[in-house]
Amino acid sequence: MSDSRTVPAGAYEVRIGTGVLETAGAILASRADPGPVLLVTDENVGPLYLDRVRESVRAADFRPEALVLPAGERLKTLENVRRVYDRLLSVGADRGTPVVALGGGTVGDLAGFAAATWMRGIPWICLPTTLLAQVDASVGGKTAVNYREGKNLVGVFHEPSAVAADLETLRTLPEREFLSGFSEVLKTALALDPELFISIESDPGGVATPEGRRIPDTVVACVRAKVRVVGADLREAGRRRVLNFGHTVGHALEAAAGYGGVLHGEAVAVGMMAAVRLSVKRTGLAPEWEARLAGLLRALGLPVEREDLAVVPEREAVARHLARDKKIRGGRIAMVLLEAPGRPRIVTDVPAVQVLEAVYPP
Amino acid sequence: MSDSRTVPAGAYEVRIGTGVLETAGAILASRADPGPVLLVTDENVGPLYLDRVRESVRAADFRPEALVLPAGERLKTLENVRRVYDRLLSVGADRGTPVVALGGGTVGDLAGFAAATWMRGIPWICLPTTLLAQVDASVGGKTAVNYREGKNLVGVFHEPSAVAADLETLRTLPEREFLSGFSEVLKTALALDPELFISIESDPGGVATPEGRRIPDTVVACVRAKVRVVGADLREAGRRRVLNFGHTVGHALEAAAGYGGVLHGEAVAVGMMAAVRLSVKRTGLAPEWEARLAGLLRALGLPVEREDLAVVPEREAVARHLARDKKIRGGRIAMVLLEAPGRPRIVTDVPAVQVLEAVYPP
Repeated sequence: MSDSRTVPAGAYEVRIGTGVLETAGAILASRADPGPVLLVTDENVGPLYLDRVRESVRAADFRPEALVLPAGERLKTLENVRRVYDRLLSVGADRGTPVVALGGGTVGDLAGFAAATWMRGIPWICLPTTLLAQVDASVGGKTAVNYREGKNLVGVFHEPSAVAADLETLRTLPEREFLSGFSEVLKTALALDPELFISIESDPGGVATPEGRRIPDTVVACVRAKVRVVGADLREAGRRRVLNFGHTVGHALEAAAGYGGVLHGEAVAVGMMAAVRLSVKRTGLAPEWEARLAGLLRALGLPVEREDLAVVPEREAVARHLARDKKIRGGRIAMVLLEAPGRPRIVTDVPAVQVLEAVYPP
Repeated sequence: MSDSRTVPAGAYEVRIGTGVLETAGAILASRADPGPVLLVTDENVGPLYLDRVRESVRAADFRPEALVLPAGERLKTLENVRRVYDRLLSVGADRGTPVVALGGGTVGDLAGFAAATWMRGIPWICLPTTLLAQVDASVGGKTAVNYREGKNLVGVFHEPSAVAADLETLRTLPEREFLSGFSEVLKTALALDPELFISIESDPGGVATPEGRRIPDTVVACVRAKVRVVGADLREAGRRRVLNFGHTVGHALEAAAGYGGVLHGEAVAVGMMAAVRLSVKRTGLAPEWEARLAGLLRALGLPVEREDLAVVPEREAVARHLARDKKIRGGRIAMVLLEAPGRPRIVTDVPAVQVLEAVYPP
């Protein structure tokens, strides 16, 4: 049985609750004509949830075809995009054939990119199974794969036709993955919804596990906050960039550590600390927030400083990756800082060296 | 010296005239910050016009980098997209780095696709050097590469920041290429601008060569007509599909003949004849138009029937490619027919076999 709430997100809806994977067929039926459907998933998620989705899709008179790809960031390659293309060819996909992405953010990024670029865009449905994907990646239409050493260098904006986040899937998520996703919850809270931050601070136990009492409300709050920001700025020309809070340093740390050694959310946690420090210096954030963020990260079991990361990257490697940031222009980085929690500001002239020093003090 | 007219096309402008390649630098300067610029061209066009564009770009304080790719439809591969990506990496491109496509439709399709998918979209400037690209391909934001046997299977919509069509470049175009492009002029005229068709009928010599007196007006008329249709429907959900007049059969013939053996416009000419015949049967087009189109195609030196093609494809190969058409759903093809010249209608239920019989009578 499905017990869910729905957050409207412009042209599509985000369904959040338990048992929503079983509604995949119904979601398809309301958005596409009967025919083949390509289910893309990975080797971690497939064995757990593919059958459930396949049954639901079949019951709705679609013909499910599954493509199970290797798990992890290494999934996001142009080679795997070609595997999706090849399967679309072999099932005889037309412009109305939907792609269903079942998995974490990597699966959504890859399958969404393939759908975006096949015949100049076919529909896709996103079934995020990680906390990270449910609160962040599945909303906003960003799709991408990695290219050579660069993360998400190749991608486009292509909104899904629907998102259905089944909170039950969080229970099979490794604890470290769950916590990593929680880092994006804190990002959303700090940058956009200070009340959410304070409510988490008051009861970390109520959210810090998949069974936590406050998980449904928290996911809904994050999706709502993200929808508000993305709605007015899909293509990230302005306001949307505030969602990158913590990500300038986060991405550089993640890349420098080698994808996989450090999880995205872990790197973002340390990146948020850097952004908070720079915010105290540059945009007048009250100094207490450095200690409050650090305290909450520690209470949740997330890293605070670079030394807390499983793989501590070299300063030089981080510097090199910062220099390649997509938001860099003329050697200065456009970075999201906070005037206060919930009051983000994009500062376009932060020298890369200053960013680096917030993580690697001289 | 540049002598040009400008057609506004929504967010960008199409400059049409002589000497406009020399304005490339000025166009860039008004749309991007100084820095690297990637010029993508092919081995036919590069030797003729690259220096001219490079000088103009350099004079405007940009740093031009050139990538010269093999010419022809074989240029449009994912492998060549990667070559563009690699060059973007090596010049240290950021989100504001423009790509300039100098060449025919294939160069624009490829470079536009690479720009569309690099960092989720960087700006690109289109400098079309063939009649086909000037009157058709450069307007409307379609980008794509071929995939396996399918033409344009992988692509997205990504409008250029500017288009500058230098009519002087038509003089170095092989005559067969020029005529092939003229087929798209006739398509635009028949589907959207019957006055243009009649004016060409009255004076084929005034347009049928690059030096033709009426070339500038004709290119401007085609761009205006296309802009009108595309403006309201960039993503080809409805109205825009009328631009596919002649292309259902055209694409199938072109693919079945093997790209290169038959030029796009040549295939489209035969495809228009098929569409006109079906229009007489299905949408009440006056029968005289079959003879009028055939007469004009012959006067211009374009093919009329499949036997006129340099490579005559097998019926079975054409049938196979029709079955793969992007506009096919449930075995029936959505096809543009005419109620009258300038009054196109999309008929969604044309059986593939009926389409085939318009070219290969039983």
